[in-house]
Amino acid sequence: MLVTFEGGEGSGKSTQAKLLYDHFVAEGLDAIFVREPGSTPVAEGIRSFLLTGRSDGISPNTEALLFMAARSDLWLNVIIPALNAGKIVVSDRSQDSTVVYQGICKGVDRTLIDNIFRSFAGDVIPRRTYLFDIDPLVGIARSLSRAGNKETIFEDMGLEYHRKVRFGFLDLAQKNPGRFVVLDGELSVTELYDRIVADIGALIAQRLPQGLQELTTASS
Amino acid sequence: MLVTFEGGEGSGKSTQAKLLYDHFVAEGLDAIFVREPGSTPVAEGIRSFLLTGRSDGISPNTEALLFMAARSDLWLNVIIPALNAGKIVVSDRSQDSTVVYQGICKGVDRTLIDNIFRSFAGDVIPRRTYLFDIDPLVGIARSLSRAGNKETIFEDMGLEYHRKVRFGFLDLAQKNPGRFVVLDGELSVTELYDRIVADIGALIAQRLPQGLQELTTASS
Repeated sequence: MLVTFEGGEGSGKSTQAKLLYDHFVAEGLDAIFVREPGSTPVAEGIRSFLLTGRSDGISPNTEALLFMAARSDLWLNVIIPALNAGKIVVSDRSQDSTVVYQGICKGVDRTLIDNIFRSFAGDVIPRRTYLFDIDPLVGIARSLSRAGNKETIFEDMGLEYHRKVRFGFLDLAQKNPGRFVVLDGELSVTELYDRIVADIGALIAQRLPQGLQELTTASS
Repeated sequence: MLVTFEGGEGSGKSTQAKLLYDHFVAEGLDAIFVREPGSTPVAEGIRSFLLTGRSDGISPNTEALLFMAARSDLWLNVIIPALNAGKIVVSDRSQDSTVVYQGICKGVDRTLIDNIFRSFAGDVIPRRTYLFDIDPLVGIARSLSRAGNKETIFEDMGLEYHRKVRFGFLDLAQKNPGRFVVLDGELSVTELYDRIVADIGALIAQRLPQGLQELTTASS
């Protein structure tokens, strides 16, 4: 089972993605945590190149191809093998981010982005995507106030762009209601955590055989 | 007009590509020289990452996406604007290399490689492609004997792979006879140069208005 966390900068998704991973580990479930772009040596190299300014002035098409290259490396080497081994994969960002940032907001051909994704992901899509919705003014202020944040390329894009990102994500969520859960990024960490754990617990219970369902319910 | 140079490692294509560019400049023609991957800051960053071992163990799909990202950057920022300005572009390797190395030889989906190419190149293809054909045993020995050659990732792939590369290129040439000219990479530098200059002179003459044709003929 693949669970992804999406949303604009400073929306709280990375915090909750890690908390959910910790929850799975505490429950004794076999889970891994990844972030995109990144989580393999090749993909972290691309991440550093893309997010710290060395790719200044890069075209949206090239940028999309680099994000897809990083994703291809992570999916082929980590995510697909983990899913095939029956593990739960928690991912901080994934394909939806490229669809929104480069496709919807910067005009890169969405069919191309989709076709590249299928070249390594096949038919795999997330079972659940938590979308953290937040006013960009609040999110960017949060993100830039983080100590030591050097990955500020997208924060520097201007408010109009981040408004497009917000509504791009909301549009995706509306078109995929069975997969997306939209959360208010201004809720407290605890409140968000409780909602996510309740939602994911119900999803996992659906998938477990009867005996294991009782075990999971008893332990939570 | 776009002129590309293709072939295996150590086939002599880079030497001849530079010589042809020098010839154009000496003739007073407005030409630029590029190499792939590379020739922009972003693409040279990707080149260094791909060809010097930091991407060890990378999957063919990811490798193809990185080559295409580098190509996208070069084409959008340099090649397309130069062609639109009426310049001659001489390129040491181009799309055919990705089709052969990652598509034909490593099994990456060729339709995907073609679709990505069209996303930035549109309908542009080279007017002429010089394919330098050489026995891989001779070519790799030449390439590895070059002083200071650190870009040895493809040289390290083994002879069987390089035989596939050779026949992949020859297959492309056979299927595109109007574009490709196949040259014997074991001919001398002077002999190769003379053949290329004669061929390209004839091609350019076809494209010039009558008055300029006479001027070009007179100067050569």
